[in-house]
Amino acid sequence: MSKDTVVLAYSGGLDTSCILVWLIEKGYKVVTFQADVGQEEDFEAAKAKALKLGAEKAFVCDCKKEFVEDFIWPGLQANAKYEGRYPMGTALARPCIARNMIERAKLEGAKYISHGATGKGNDQVRFEIACYALYPGVQIIAPWREDEFLARFNGRNDLMEYAAANNIPIKASKSDPWSMDDNLMHISYEAGMLEDPNTESRSDMYTMTCDPEKAPDKPERLSIYFEGGIPISVTNKDDGAKVTGALELFLYLNKIAGKHGVGRIDIVENRFIGMKSRGCYETPGGSVLLDAHEDLELLTMDKEIRRLKEYLSVQFSTQVYEGKWYSPECEYTRGCIAKSQEGVSGTVHLKLYKGNIMITGRESDQSLYNQELVSMDVAGDYQPRDAQGFIRINALRLREFQRLKKLHGN
Amino acid sequence: MSKDTVVLAYSGGLDTSCILVWLIEKGYKVVTFQADVGQEEDFEAAKAKALKLGAEKAFVCDCKKEFVEDFIWPGLQANAKYEGRYPMGTALARPCIARNMIERAKLEGAKYISHGATGKGNDQVRFEIACYALYPGVQIIAPWREDEFLARFNGRNDLMEYAAANNIPIKASKSDPWSMDDNLMHISYEAGMLEDPNTESRSDMYTMTCDPEKAPDKPERLSIYFEGGIPISVTNKDDGAKVTGALELFLYLNKIAGKHGVGRIDIVENRFIGMKSRGCYETPGGSVLLDAHEDLELLTMDKEIRRLKEYLSVQFSTQVYEGKWYSPECEYTRGCIAKSQEGVSGTVHLKLYKGNIMITGRESDQSLYNQELVSMDVAGDYQPRDAQGFIRINALRLREFQRLKKLHGN
Amino acid sequence: MSKDTVVLAYSGGLDTSCILVWLIEKGYKVVTFQADVGQEEDFEAAKAKALKLGAEKAFVCDCKKEFVEDFIWPGLQANAKYEGRYPMGTALARPCIARNMIERAKLEGAKYISHGATGKGNDQVRFEIACYALYPGVQIIAPWREDEFLARFNGRNDLMEYAAANNIPIKASKSDPWSMDDNLMHISYEAGMLEDPNTESRSDMYTMTCDPEKAPDKPERLSIYFEGGIPISVTNKDDGAKVTGALELFLYLNKIAGKHGVGRIDIVENRFIGMKSRGCYETPGGSVLLDAHEDLELLTMDKEIRRLKEYLSVQFSTQVYEGKWYSPECEYTRGCIAKSQEGVSGTVHLKLYKGNIMITGRESDQSLYNQELVSMDVAGDYQPRDAQGFIRINALRLREFQRLKKLHGN
Amino acid sequence: MSKDTVVLAYSGGLDTSCILVWLIEKGYKVVTFQADVGQEEDFEAAKAKALKLGAEKAFVCDCKKEFVEDFIWPGLQANAKYEGRYPMGTALARPCIARNMIERAKLEGAKYISHGATGKGNDQVRFEIACYALYPGVQIIAPWREDEFLARFNGRNDLMEYAAANNIPIKASKSDPWSMDDNLMHISYEAGMLEDPNTESRSDMYTMTCDPEKAPDKPERLSIYFEGGIPISVTNKDDGAKVTGALELFLYLNKIAGKHGVGRIDIVENRFIGMKSRGCYETPGGSVLLDAHEDLELLTMDKEIRRLKEYLSVQFSTQVYEGKWYSPECEYTRGCIAKSQEGVSGTVHLKLYKGNIMITGRESDQSLYNQELVSMDVAGDYQPRDAQGFIRINALRLREFQRLKKLHGN
Repeated sequence: MSKDTVVLAYSGGLDTSCILVWLIEKGYKVVTFQADVGQEEDFEAAKAKALKLGAEKAFVCDCKKEFVEDFIWPGLQANAKYEGRYPMGTALARPCIARNMIERAKLEGAKYISHGATGKGNDQVRFEIACYALYPGVQIIAPWREDEFLARFNGRNDLMEYAAANNIPIKASKSDPWSMDDNLMHISYEAGMLEDPNTESRSDMYTMTCDPEKAPDKPERLSIYFEGGIPISVTNKDDGAKVTGALELFLYLNKIAGKHGVGRIDIVENRFIGMKSRGCYETPGGSVLLDAHEDLELLTMDKEIRRLKEYLSVQFSTQVYEGKWYSPECEYTRGCIAKSQEGVSGTVHLKLYKGNIMITGRESDQSLYNQELVSMDVAGDYQPRDAQGFIRINALRLREFQRLKKLHGN
Repeated sequence: MSKDTVVLAYSGGLDTSCILVWLIEKGYKVVTFQADVGQEEDFEAAKAKALKLGAEKAFVCDCKKEFVEDFIWPGLQANAKYEGRYPMGTALARPCIARNMIERAKLEGAKYISHGATGKGNDQVRFEIACYALYPGVQIIAPWREDEFLARFNGRNDLMEYAAANNIPIKASKSDPWSMDDNLMHISYEAGMLEDPNTESRSDMYTMTCDPEKAPDKPERLSIYFEGGIPISVTNKDDGAKVTGALELFLYLNKIAGKHGVGRIDIVENRFIGMKSRGCYETPGGSVLLDAHEDLELLTMDKEIRRLKEYLSVQFSTQVYEGKWYSPECEYTRGCIAKSQEGVSGTVHLKLYKGNIMITGRESDQSLYNQELVSMDVAGDYQPRDAQGFIRINALRLREFQRLKKLHGN
Repeated sequence: MSKDTVVLAYSGGLDTSCILVWLIEKGYKVVTFQADVGQEEDFEAAKAKALKLGAEKAFVCDCKKEFVEDFIWPGLQANAKYEGRYPMGTALARPCIARNMIERAKLEGAKYISHGATGKGNDQVRFEIACYALYPGVQIIAPWREDEFLARFNGRNDLMEYAAANNIPIKASKSDPWSMDDNLMHISYEAGMLEDPNTESRSDMYTMTCDPEKAPDKPERLSIYFEGGIPISVTNKDDGAKVTGALELFLYLNKIAGKHGVGRIDIVENRFIGMKSRGCYETPGGSVLLDAHEDLELLTMDKEIRRLKEYLSVQFSTQVYEGKWYSPECEYTRGCIAKSQEGVSGTVHLKLYKGNIMITGRESDQSLYNQELVSMDVAGDYQPRDAQGFIRINALRLREFQRLKKLHGN
Repeated sequence: MSKDTVVLAYSGGLDTSCILVWLIEKGYKVVTFQADVGQEEDFEAAKAKALKLGAEKAFVCDCKKEFVEDFIWPGLQANAKYEGRYPMGTALARPCIARNMIERAKLEGAKYISHGATGKGNDQVRFEIACYALYPGVQIIAPWREDEFLARFNGRNDLMEYAAANNIPIKASKSDPWSMDDNLMHISYEAGMLEDPNTESRSDMYTMTCDPEKAPDKPERLSIYFEGGIPISVTNKDDGAKVTGALELFLYLNKIAGKHGVGRIDIVENRFIGMKSRGCYETPGGSVLLDAHEDLELLTMDKEIRRLKEYLSVQFSTQVYEGKWYSPECEYTRGCIAKSQEGVSGTVHLKLYKGNIMITGRESDQSLYNQELVSMDVAGDYQPRDAQGFIRINALRLREFQRLKKLHGN
């Protein structure tokens, strides 16, 4: 009897290594899949480990460029921040990983997908919804939701014992008092000591960004040039360096912004499944781009289009956070947002300094800013008297309302 | 024939002094009115000047406390920022000033109100709409929109000459290459050299806040305690100082936050009348409170109430920016927002450092954060298996959509 | 060992009678509960049947008045129609039923609740979410989702056989080729022959409303008087009858509107769980009230409050449709909507004729309609010249946009 | 000195004939322009009259087809109804008329545009904003807002006298006690006896639609086929007639729907300038199409796209009502709405009967309705057990909220 194939989202760590062995034990043929979205990882070592543990095949897929171009860029065009604050470094990576993994599953003829996400988090939702959308017939094995698995592995110690018993190599390193998820856009920290939202995070926790207090005493000046809402080049005005190319530019901004301690947040957020959680995030390059892009929009986008787009962006952020990238509504919303970006071209000038992103100027040949019109010194094509009628008509309804109020003695 | 009385919003400066004399020249009896909303001003000197120039009466009205309690606090409860960025220090002050001035006009039996706002700005709109709403029969004299006045005073030189000819004392001081508006919440800078949105502002322009680069090298830690979305006390964790009282607390935060260079922004915004303008703002204490309040909301407010309130807040910000504080819709929106604040009580801990507001923790006995529920180590009252059904039902519609797409070969 | 008590939502029909016996078979003590929300039912007979089948106790609870006052009225104030069309007769009844049933469960010390709703519908969701909210520790037995039950009862025949074997009396009547749910607000029809959205419903299906083609040839005129958005009295202008009292008035409108064939719709809608379904509904009295109330709002509610309220109403309709009446957001939204109704008082005049609700006039001493202001024959307190400035300032941004377009050659 | 040219929006009636003569008197060269958008009018007679009264040139422009295709169709795709009720027959015609008139003005080298709209209405705003957007340098002469004109023509009698004195032919017909505006989409009635919102309109007022009470006793059945949200053909199932072509189809629906008394409304609405007005409208064909289109959307459009689109449609309706068709935001919104229509193809079956539009069925090969999935008799690809997890996770947040409430004793 030929066994069923499972494609397992593999990280090389303790959890997914135990899951790999457990799946084999359960009778599956396991193919491991690692998406390289820029996380700190020795992919070759992990691949070798997977094969050694019994995986039929082990794949590593470089998704870095498409992560930036197909996921981070649309997020940037939307100014997407979940609940106004979280730039969604994890939420944007999931659909990128899922897309590649599903492609692999189809190539391998696998009907099963497995992952090591927990049963309380957002990632199980994001990952699985994406899989169901892209591969409607797929079956998902989520061990951390299976009674059998949960009964067997009740905490880290059980995993350690199982690893020892099954020759799964364990890193000697003491684990951190928090869990983290990293990719080229950000690192998120949660759980462990962070579970109490009133416990301050440790300054040595962050790894992409310098502590602002230890950042350079001298600001660094950058100019970012956008076309259609997408960054095309970054110029360092201090050393003259100019970086282009989506991935290169993003990594460069990570480096510079990280050096200046930019992009840390410590927040409480509402998970899709309805519980509140606390997360600390560092998103150096992304934070700089978000601020710059938003600034450029104000220069180049019509006021009322901006209002409509702001509404759509709130929807988009929720869709992405809730794992619905491949939903009809997200496809639709992305299309509408993209439409709003046609004129968002120009350059934003800013400086980075000890955690601050300070915008100092912006310019665009798509600017809707009319210096003559707004000037206090020139009339331009404007008749001040018009404002009187404008004000009086705007006040008409308010006066009527007060008239009625008075009529009724309030 | 008895002359008509005008109440003039007076600042003591060149413009409104010339308007004062011009109104008298036109045959009006002029009563000057100065609202003290915390701006830097020698009110007694200005009052004396007005009387000397011929004002029948000159009033100064201390509105500082009510500005904080009746206007800044509702703005804070709403997390109000126009177009997501501007905390609206000017827009919140106008209805406070107008209310007191209209009260004065009624007491004086004046049918006319006059002010020195320009014909291109937001303030004429805010000021006049408020006046029309509160005093429907009022007539407004806006010299900077009157052809006769504009013909006579074509620029600053004409004002200077008129002042000289009419014994209007002029400060010797050279005027700044920008115009500013200040109150206890903020200072705004615009026009002049700032009219080019690509010209960097000068570091010596700001006066409420220290340049972040020159701010103290040591962070300062504060705890802010809120009840029902309103700050009740601020505790300085470094020196133990504790400040209560709306006005005192706000001024204290201004001082500390200003010292640490917190609250500067440089933006392009869309004026109500439809033109884009560029403004630089410093809002030290307000910025700290806005960040802290928003953080506390995430801890204590239900996810879906927050979403509804976010929508209402965007509306509220537009209403206030557009001068419609006394409109039916703003009254309604404030009521709805106030309703959302009932449980927003608790303490936010943060530190200020060279322009940064870093939130380090938050606690509340109204917290909806359930540490046991979210914990990775405890199951709490949660069955991981439920997530599977949740995900699968959420994916149902997406799978249907893909099914149809495939049916039609896309 | 004492057995656990289940409170079963009982209808007296085949399904819930089988469930009752099955639950006893499974070892539960069963208490049946019937909420009288105005459905066509011989409650006493059903009660007797339940006791005969082995129920420990059988309760019937008259919820008609509270259904109208606490659920239909808030729905009316919101002008609530799901997806713009469905007045939610079922969705509004569920939280009313659940509230009373949970109260009963607590009195009986029951930890279990059971119902006969299917596993594909909205009602399971509405019912259970309400139960979980009001009685967080409750356990729910939904036989139509249980593998064991589904295996045993695969279709109507199995139920019939089980009934025969267990002395469950079955009505001789042939079942309709659709299923229905009725209460005093409406009857819904779905499933069976209606499952094909292109099959026309049969004219004899509807029971609360006359076929418009067979309705009286003479219209009937009513006046409905509202206070604070709630109907207080209905006057029949043809025969002079005047009806007051929430329940009496609603039933009276059902009768008159039903006679004139008013309130039928045939729609496709989106269920909460993500599938589309087709439903036919008749909501005679509710439809009249919804039209009248909406009309009165336009007379008495400020334009911009109406816009905000319209947004909130869309949210409210979704919340209620999705079973979240007892959610924080729905409580909040109801509060905001109630606030908007303060001035919605006055009388709407209308006539009913063969399916039509024709509004003929409306009056209110809270009217914001100012006949003098709007008149073409009187100027009122209005200066036509003001409109020019209003228009020109409104056009400013549009002209700027065209200017930029031309600049770029489009 | 060569005189300036004015293009006058001419109707042939008393008002614009007087304006024509008055403009000539004021020294302008007048070119009259009549847009044929389907109103009842003898265009040739009006043209001759204009020339006889001194117009330099007189143009009639057939805009009927483009009115339907470029304006009514986008309105239909949006399901656009202002304030949920008014299908905007006038508001949709204005930008069509303005576009053609501006084109004419440019061809004639005219810098002036004039019209006979009053100073209190929406039409002045719609007309002029469109003109300013399309022809930024244009100057507008709106006599009914000019003090000089208003002083001279104080009511209808003055116009009559002026007409007599200037050989302006006047129709003998007694004027109606209301004013009306008609085009092929609708007729609106307002003012006069309708100014009191409590006065019932006269049954003989309407002209496009039969009184429902006098309409045929037999319903008529139609099938309307749409592609991409646009009606392609109408089939009369009673007589087999099939009509295609945008204009032909629309006129055909007007005829049939008018015959059956479909499309009358009597409402109070909020004008852009802030006053409430009362209008009666008849929109026979448009009402049928709006109902049918909305129904088809529910069959073919994803639930969440529909929600987003519903929001956009509310915005679109306001934009159009307020005369901002040629604004950046309306262009943007139309684009987004058009995007939502891609799959809105299929056939809606309905019958018309004495004022009722009764939808009886709908079908589409783009249907997202899955009969097997929704069926009560078949499981389809659906596991009822999933609903349990879905419900429980949805209830999680609600239970938490109640937990906190209880904690605080409410």
